[in-house]
Amino acid sequence: MTYCVGMLLKAGLVMVSDSRTNAGVDNISTYRKMTIWEIPGERVIVAMSAGNLAITQAAIQFMNEGMPQGESRLSMKTVTSMTEAARLASWALREVDRVDGPSLRASGAGFNASIIIGGQINGRKMRMFQLYSEGNFIQAMPETPYLQIGEFKYGKPIIDRVVRFDTPLATAAKCALVSMDSTVKSNLTVAPPIDLLICERDSLKVKYHALMREDDPYWTSLRQSWSAGLSAQFEALPDPSWAT
Amino acid sequence: MTYCVGMLLKAGLVMVSDSRTNAGVDNISTYRKMTIWEIPGERVIVAMSAGNLAITQAAIQFMNEGMPQGESRLSMKTVTSMTEAARLASWALREVDRVDGPSLRASGAGFNASIIIGGQINGRKMRMFQLYSEGNFIQAMPETPYLQIGEFKYGKPIIDRVVRFDTPLATAAKCALVSMDSTVKSNLTVAPPIDLLICERDSLKVKYHALMREDDPYWTSLRQSWSAGLSAQFEALPDPSWAT
Repeated sequence: MTYCVGMLLKAGLVMVSDSRTNAGVDNISTYRKMTIWEIPGERVIVAMSAGNLAITQAAIQFMNEGMPQGESRLSMKTVTSMTEAARLASWALREVDRVDGPSLRASGAGFNASIIIGGQINGRKMRMFQLYSEGNFIQAMPETPYLQIGEFKYGKPIIDRVVRFDTPLATAAKCALVSMDSTVKSNLTVAPPIDLLICERDSLKVKYHALMREDDPYWTSLRQSWSAGLSAQFEALPDPSWAT
Repeated sequence: MTYCVGMLLKAGLVMVSDSRTNAGVDNISTYRKMTIWEIPGERVIVAMSAGNLAITQAAIQFMNEGMPQGESRLSMKTVTSMTEAARLASWALREVDRVDGPSLRASGAGFNASIIIGGQINGRKMRMFQLYSEGNFIQAMPETPYLQIGEFKYGKPIIDRVVRFDTPLATAAKCALVSMDSTVKSNLTVAPPIDLLICERDSLKVKYHALMREDDPYWTSLRQSWSAGLSAQFEALPDPSWAT
């Protein structure tokens, strides 16, 4: 499995993904789930994917090659809005389904893939979408400014508590990493390295992109601070009446 | 859905369950999931159940009526060890499956139920078991002293962080309630009232049993303290390098 979370906030985008892929428990590898198309000053588009790796890799490949449009091709480097980017990703998923879907379904594997795509193109709105296996998609909105794919349940409570549309990017990034840490701790199929990307609204360039490995100093210090902080919080919680 | 968590610790048992049942999103009701058989000084046996309510209610009924044994019946009031209690619960689930399983499977509903059963009988060991739909079961052990059924993922990270075999009962109970709070916050199918039961090892009686409604003062103060504490923790976390 995998865990990816994207946040579309007033201040910009935060996107975090892990790098573990497994086919069963005895076939575990490291593949990054984040793909970035950046032309500084012109566009930043970021995709994160979960599900069957053969499907999502093929879909990313189709997004790079582009969708035929008359004599040219529409790719992530040439789409003119984020909605067009989401439609391109949708087309890519359906292309993979057209080619590989029948064989997958015949073997009982099913067609399982999901994609979060976020970013901004010069003169257009910053947006973030979540695509389902079928290629249809939803959009993050101020009332629910985050989207998750993969093993999302473990890390959802902390985001529900902390993240609002006006949460600053640094706080949101820390929350996304804590959400990832909770998931890594409780589910073996999610693991570092962790991709973290931050993009300020209207900046049209990536502000920060880090690949944090298991021993990354910031990832390590964040995990330790959070763990120690939670223990202190537990000590401070009021005791139930029978225990006082 | 439902969420129940049981902890078998050095100091005793902590068991927590919610009370929401839903068949679809437009048929939501309140049913408690905890059943207690207590003969003070002689036995405490506690069952919590998740899954199809018709199945689990029927299984509890069979545990009360007892399993035929020659001319008598073996019930939760007469089993002589916790292992025997788990076998009785297993028999009860399979009895329900024998009676109702074929109709459920014919309609495509499947046979979906799980039970946590914990307790102690005079002169015997305190134990806790988790039963699957098929009636087979596993036992909590010092290395993994907790068992969860129902919507377990949201509330698992906090337990993984806090609870060890030697965690005091008060801390474990607070952690179980925080785990429940996280689940309630993130999943509409889990909700108060919350049953909380504490039983000290070798005491052979319930130390504390509360049914906490939404406005219960302790539940409310715990949620508020935890929420405020987490926010403070977030403020205290080290900022990533780009934000400093």
